[in-house]
Amino acid sequence: MPNSTDPTTDPSLRSWVSIPDGSDFPIQNLPYGIFRPAADDHWRVGVAIGTQVLDLASVATAGLFDGHVDHAVDLFSAPTLNGYLAAGPSVWAAGRARISTLLSEGHRDLLDVAGLTESALFDHASVTMALPFEVADYVDFYSSVEHATNLGRILRPNQEPLLPNWKHLPIGYHGRAGTVVLSGTDVVRPLGQRKSPDDATPVFGPSIRLDIETEIGFVTGPPSRQGTPVSTDAAADHIFGLVLVNDWSARDIQAWEYQPLGPFLSKSFATSISAWVVPLAALAPYRIPGPAQDPTPLAYLRFEGDWNYDLSLAVELTTPSMRAAGSEPFLVSRPYYGLMYWNMLQQLAHATVNGASVRTGDLFASGTISGPERDAVGSFIERTWNGTEPLVLPDGSERRFLEDGDEIVITGWCAGSDDRLRIGFGEVRGTIQPAPSI
Amino acid sequence: MPNSTDPTTDPSLRSWVSIPDGSDFPIQNLPYGIFRPAADDHWRVGVAIGTQVLDLASVATAGLFDGHVDHAVDLFSAPTLNGYLAAGPSVWAAGRARISTLLSEGHRDLLDVAGLTESALFDHASVTMALPFEVADYVDFYSSVEHATNLGRILRPNQEPLLPNWKHLPIGYHGRAGTVVLSGTDVVRPLGQRKSPDDATPVFGPSIRLDIETEIGFVTGPPSRQGTPVSTDAAADHIFGLVLVNDWSARDIQAWEYQPLGPFLSKSFATSISAWVVPLAALAPYRIPGPAQDPTPLAYLRFEGDWNYDLSLAVELTTPSMRAAGSEPFLVSRPYYGLMYWNMLQQLAHATVNGASVRTGDLFASGTISGPERDAVGSFIERTWNGTEPLVLPDGSERRFLEDGDEIVITGWCAGSDDRLRIGFGEVRGTIQPAPSI
Repeated sequence: MPNSTDPTTDPSLRSWVSIPDGSDFPIQNLPYGIFRPAADDHWRVGVAIGTQVLDLASVATAGLFDGHVDHAVDLFSAPTLNGYLAAGPSVWAAGRARISTLLSEGHRDLLDVAGLTESALFDHASVTMALPFEVADYVDFYSSVEHATNLGRILRPNQEPLLPNWKHLPIGYHGRAGTVVLSGTDVVRPLGQRKSPDDATPVFGPSIRLDIETEIGFVTGPPSRQGTPVSTDAAADHIFGLVLVNDWSARDIQAWEYQPLGPFLSKSFATSISAWVVPLAALAPYRIPGPAQDPTPLAYLRFEGDWNYDLSLAVELTTPSMRAAGSEPFLVSRPYYGLMYWNMLQQLAHATVNGASVRTGDLFASGTISGPERDAVGSFIERTWNGTEPLVLPDGSERRFLEDGDEIVITGWCAGSDDRLRIGFGEVRGTIQPAPSI
Repeated sequence: MPNSTDPTTDPSLRSWVSIPDGSDFPIQNLPYGIFRPAADDHWRVGVAIGTQVLDLASVATAGLFDGHVDHAVDLFSAPTLNGYLAAGPSVWAAGRARISTLLSEGHRDLLDVAGLTESALFDHASVTMALPFEVADYVDFYSSVEHATNLGRILRPNQEPLLPNWKHLPIGYHGRAGTVVLSGTDVVRPLGQRKSPDDATPVFGPSIRLDIETEIGFVTGPPSRQGTPVSTDAAADHIFGLVLVNDWSARDIQAWEYQPLGPFLSKSFATSISAWVVPLAALAPYRIPGPAQDPTPLAYLRFEGDWNYDLSLAVELTTPSMRAAGSEPFLVSRPYYGLMYWNMLQQLAHATVNGASVRTGDLFASGTISGPERDAVGSFIERTWNGTEPLVLPDGSERRFLEDGDEIVITGWCAGSDDRLRIGFGEVRGTIQPAPSI
């Protein structure tokens, strides 16, 4: 596994690419995505560096991965990251080391290929991004104790907020892989059934309690074998990197449908992820201890080392009237991933302990990330306490849940104590479109 | 849509291929699967006919689909059915009509190609089958009112057995697509957490309440657009055909994990499907009215026509001691699909009413199929009433749930009133292997 002596994360490393202060994408990050230039139909793998995208297909075609990454032209001239994900940790390490070297100040291999900086570096603003990987299965956990406690208090008042199983296993469920969409994709308000306690029968129509869930997801690399659990010790070798996730949720649909088999249509209409996958290697310097786990988990959920991350997020809202007035986005909350109760090694070990296999491109999301303070929660149902305490926006308007035309942008970054070096995730963005009429 | 005047389902149709009496695969069936001959590494599409498999790749290569099915060589020389599924209803109809003609008594196009009957017809017993399609998303419904009522009585005694939402919408949840396996694949007993009311803390180990769920699944063809619901009127154009499903379930794991997000590890270790996909067209003559729905469903769940199927199933058990003694399999139950409360048009309309899209190769399973009689239920938890009334086998041994080495074979067929013509599904078979030690 990468560690803090990995030269690719050395804070003193500089690139010959000019990188603005505070960029999400310094040379220590090197997140992967899928893009195509404006004038080209072919999707390929790129790496973000400052305001630029480095075209790894062109770099590979120029022979600059020769002797470092086998089959680099095939892996990087692909419309998804799945081939690279499947290649596994040693290839990821070799690829990252080589890209880091090629972009380092004082290193000339890339600069010395005539015309390559012009043909392989693109302004981020000029390219089109695609979903970075083909999602195999999508699992969503529920691993923030503050979120689970808040939801318990809101939905089951006068009862113990945490259910009896919560501290014994990372609760999770399968979501719909086919409706995972790229950041920037509009989200159509879902139609569905809802029933309040006062209604005699369910009502059909557009959801009136449309919400976000602010999450971090991990993406898997090499598959595991069906029937054979992946231990916490082996889990990290199956994890390539992390993305931002917004698991859009219709609270009214969920409340009516979820007994006894869990959320279904309240979640399956859309899940948005960031365009960039930040490799675990880039995040190694930001590993921190997680919260104490009491009771001590069963043996298969115990792990070695620090596997939480000092990772901050921000949720911003722009309403149609704010957009019309040219206002800045409103900061809804600042969730913090470092407090999550169950970490990703535990999540993967749990998800496979029954023999379920991992495939390349599985997406495992954390569940809503919430801190103990009201302005650190990752959903509107918590931020407005089920709509009873609406957010008052600077223009005097209010929000309980999302309205048509509202745009949500979630950002995330690791900065550690040195705020000048920021390992960012870019953003996951989405705007609510009105429900169709049927 | 096909109807009872479709010549491919004419009961008087005969094939030049000799077909044993009572075969699952008369010329009126023509189910699709993926196979390879013993001496060949290439997977291709085949159709079952009597005891034989017709190699559609060879038939296409010989030009016999020319003028009938465009790109037939590509569609049928493929390792999955997904290309053919995506091609849509008009191609399915043309393909089926042509295959029916080629195999019909008195038709000589196929017989007249020198050597083709030898090179394109294989004994079923001599070929290897593969999973017939790449599963995109897997959804499992809960659409038998008798099953839902039985589970309610067993798990929530002294309460209303059906939850308030059950008759208003087809309850369902997402399962794990990556662990859907071909009939014949062994199933490893899952490890996991369980906690009985008497346990102070959860216990970890092999499931001690391993069960089956006898189901029928439908497989989708052309995709739908995210944000746009598929109506009940349009649903059938997205459905290619049906498979047998055994959704293996660990009841002890399920009872402890399922609150509040539904089943996860209790189901995700394995779901078995039959090797053959029976096209809807072959089943058209067996469409029957479903049960009356009271209350009347919301508008988006109403439909035209008869969309239940006169489809019978049988569940058979062979234990290790029965196998050693050479005993016949024991008939556990005879579930009947014709009583399902929610039909597949309603299931697909519900699953997409929120704007969730369908992809080619989605698998939507019915949920456990149970009738009102104890010997017509589709699971052991019902058959043995949660283990309180064990099955007594002919050799005097008992079964509450599945033990290691037990083999389950589920078969299904439509026969109508004419038992001589049987549209069968083959089988879905699986044997329980011991849990690993970790």
